[in-house]
Amino acid sequence: MKTGMKRTRTVTWEDPFIVPQAAAGRSGLEILKDVFEGRLPPPPIAETMGFTGVHVEEGKASFEGEPGEHLYNPIGVVHGGFAMALLDSAMGCSVHSTLAAGDRYTTLEVKTNFVRPITVDTGRVRCEGVVVYRGSTIATAEGKLFAVTTGKLLAHATTTCLIVRAK
Amino acid sequence: MKTGMKRTRTVTWEDPFIVPQAAAGRSGLEILKDVFEGRLPPPPIAETMGFTGVHVEEGKASFEGEPGEHLYNPIGVVHGGFAMALLDSAMGCSVHSTLAAGDRYTTLEVKTNFVRPITVDTGRVRCEGVVVYRGSTIATAEGKLFAVTTGKLLAHATTTCLIVRAK
Amino acid sequence: MKTGMKRTRTVTWEDPFIVPQAAAGRSGLEILKDVFEGRLPPPPIAETMGFTGVHVEEGKASFEGEPGEHLYNPIGVVHGGFAMALLDSAMGCSVHSTLAAGDRYTTLEVKTNFVRPITVDTGRVRCEGVVVYRGSTIATAEGKLFAVTTGKLLAHATTTCLIVRAK
Amino acid sequence: MKTGMKRTRTVTWEDPFIVPQAAAGRSGLEILKDVFEGRLPPPPIAETMGFTGVHVEEGKASFEGEPGEHLYNPIGVVHGGFAMALLDSAMGCSVHSTLAAGDRYTTLEVKTNFVRPITVDTGRVRCEGVVVYRGSTIATAEGKLFAVTTGKLLAHATTTCLIVRAK
Repeated sequence: MKTGMKRTRTVTWEDPFIVPQAAAGRSGLEILKDVFEGRLPPPPIAETMGFTGVHVEEGKASFEGEPGEHLYNPIGVVHGGFAMALLDSAMGCSVHSTLAAGDRYTTLEVKTNFVRPITVDTGRVRCEGVVVYRGSTIATAEGKLFAVTTGKLLAHATTTCLIVRAK
Repeated sequence: MKTGMKRTRTVTWEDPFIVPQAAAGRSGLEILKDVFEGRLPPPPIAETMGFTGVHVEEGKASFEGEPGEHLYNPIGVVHGGFAMALLDSAMGCSVHSTLAAGDRYTTLEVKTNFVRPITVDTGRVRCEGVVVYRGSTIATAEGKLFAVTTGKLLAHATTTCLIVRAK
Repeated sequence: MKTGMKRTRTVTWEDPFIVPQAAAGRSGLEILKDVFEGRLPPPPIAETMGFTGVHVEEGKASFEGEPGEHLYNPIGVVHGGFAMALLDSAMGCSVHSTLAAGDRYTTLEVKTNFVRPITVDTGRVRCEGVVVYRGSTIATAEGKLFAVTTGKLLAHATTTCLIVRAK
Repeated sequence: MKTGMKRTRTVTWEDPFIVPQAAAGRSGLEILKDVFEGRLPPPPIAETMGFTGVHVEEGKASFEGEPGEHLYNPIGVVHGGFAMALLDSAMGCSVHSTLAAGDRYTTLEVKTNFVRPITVDTGRVRCEGVVVYRGSTIATAEGKLFAVTTGKLLAHATTTCLIVRAK
C-alpha cells in the first residue's frame, strides 16, 4: 500500500445495475439475501469504503467493515462518512428487507451520533440496523456501530424512509 | 474503468498524519487554507470518495465532488454516504476554520435530509457549510449540497461540534 | 400569579375542531391567514404554552412567545419543549402555507439544536420557519428562534413533512 | 372544562427554584427521586402540559401523560410539542440520573420521529428514556413514547447532552 510517502488502493466492482435489474418481481429480502450471500455482486460503495453485508433477515441487517487509512480525515481519525455510510446501509437494508416485490424505498433523512473516535487501531467494526416502525408509507429504523473486539459503541443513528408502493 | 463487466478505480493518498502534525501551533483557518490551496495533501477520504475542498474562510467552507459509479448503492443511485461525507466535511471545516491555534474540535452528531437522488447524470456537486452558532464549548453549523449545473438542492444538514480548548 | 408559594395560570381556548372544519375547500395559506389574523381561533397549544402566530406567507411562518415560569424544567430554565414547540409550529406552518385546497401534511421528524438557555429574563422570543424543499410528496423546512431584544439565536431546527394529496 | 364554546384549564405550580436549590450537594439520582416520589414539587412544565415522572433509576427515566384538548394544534391532533417535551424529559432525566453531586448537564440537541398521531382517544401515554452512551463530557440517550392501552409506538427520539463537571 505504501510507495515512499504515497499509498494506493485499487477498488474493483461490477456494473451497479445488475442488482436493481435482478430485483424486478422479487421481495426486498430475497434480493438482499442474494447480495449478502454472494449470488449477486456487492454495491460499489461497499468496495470503495471497505464494508460488507454480513446478515439480513426481515427488519434487520448487519454490516462489517475495516477502518483503513484510505478513510482518514484531516484531523487524524477516520472520517465520519464511514460511520454514517455503514449506519445508513444497515438501517436502509433493514427497511429494504420488509419490502414486497415491486415496492421501493428512499431514505428521507439520517441522524447520526458519534460517541467514540474510529481509527485503524479500532479494528473490525460491526453495524446493526433494525426497523423501529413500519407503516404503509413511512418506516423508521435505528442503527448501532460497535468495535468487534471490545464491543464498545462507536456511533448510533436513526433514519426515516419513504415507502413507494408498486402501482 | 471497465474491463468486461468489472470496473476498477485506483486511489492514491499521502500519509494522513502530515496535516495533523503540520497543524501544531497554527490556527484552524491557516492549516485548512494550506490544504485547500494545495500546500498540504488532501485527506485520504477526499481521494477515496472523490471530492475536494475549494474554498475556506472564517466560519465557511465549500467542497466540490463528482458523483461516480464507485459510489453507487444497491438500488441504482449514489449512496447517501457521499452526500453525508460532503456535508460533514463542509460543516466540520466551517467549524475548524474558527479554531485558535492549539484548539481542537470533534463532531458530536450530524443530521442530513436527502431531497433529490444523486446519480452520475447529476454531474458536479457543490457543498457549502457555514457556522450557525459558535460558543466557547459548542458550535453548530449547517450545510447545503447543490448540483452545480442546475443549482438544484440535493441534500441539507446540520451538525453539533464540541470545541476542545488547548490547556 | 403567586399565592404564597403557589402560582396559578388559567388557559382558555375554543373548540379545536373549528379550524380543521373551516379548512375544507381552502388552501393552507388562506386558512392560516384566518388564524394568524384573528378571524379563526388560535390552537389550544398556543394558549397552553404562550405563543402566537404573527406572520404567514407562502413558504414562511413566524411565531412569537413569552417565556414564563409555567414553562420551567427542574434545572431552573425554560424546558426544551417550549423551543421545540415553537420551532415545530413555525416550520410546520411554513409547509402548511404551501398546501393546495384539500391537501394535508404530517410532520415526520424534527431535529432541534439548543444553543442558549431560555429564561424569563430572555424576554419575548421570535421563531421563523421557512420551507427549504417542496416536492410533491415530501417537504423540508428549517427554523430559527431568536430573542427579540438582543437578536441572539436561542435554538434552530430542521423538519421533514409528508404531503398527503387530496384524492 | 367547557363554557359555551370556550374551554378553560387552570394550572398550579410551586416556585421553580425549589428543586434547583435542593439539588446542591446531592447526586442527580437523589434529587430526581425526590421529585418523582413527591418529596419535591414537579416542574411547572409538567403541570402546564400534563405529564408526570413515574420512575427513575440510574440511566433510565419514565414519564406518563394524558393527551388533552389543551394540547391540540390547528390540524386536529395533539401538537408535536407534547411528544417532544415528554421525550426530552425522559431522555434528559435519564442523563441527569447519572450525575455526581455538583455536576450539571445541558441538552445540546433532540431529534424526534413521529410515527403515529396522538389524539385524546389515544389515552394515557408512557415515555421511557435510557442512556446510550455516557462519557465524561458527552452523554447520548434515546427515548420511546407508547400508548399505554395498546402498547403502540407513537414517537421515538435521540438526544445529545453536555456534562458540566463541578470545579
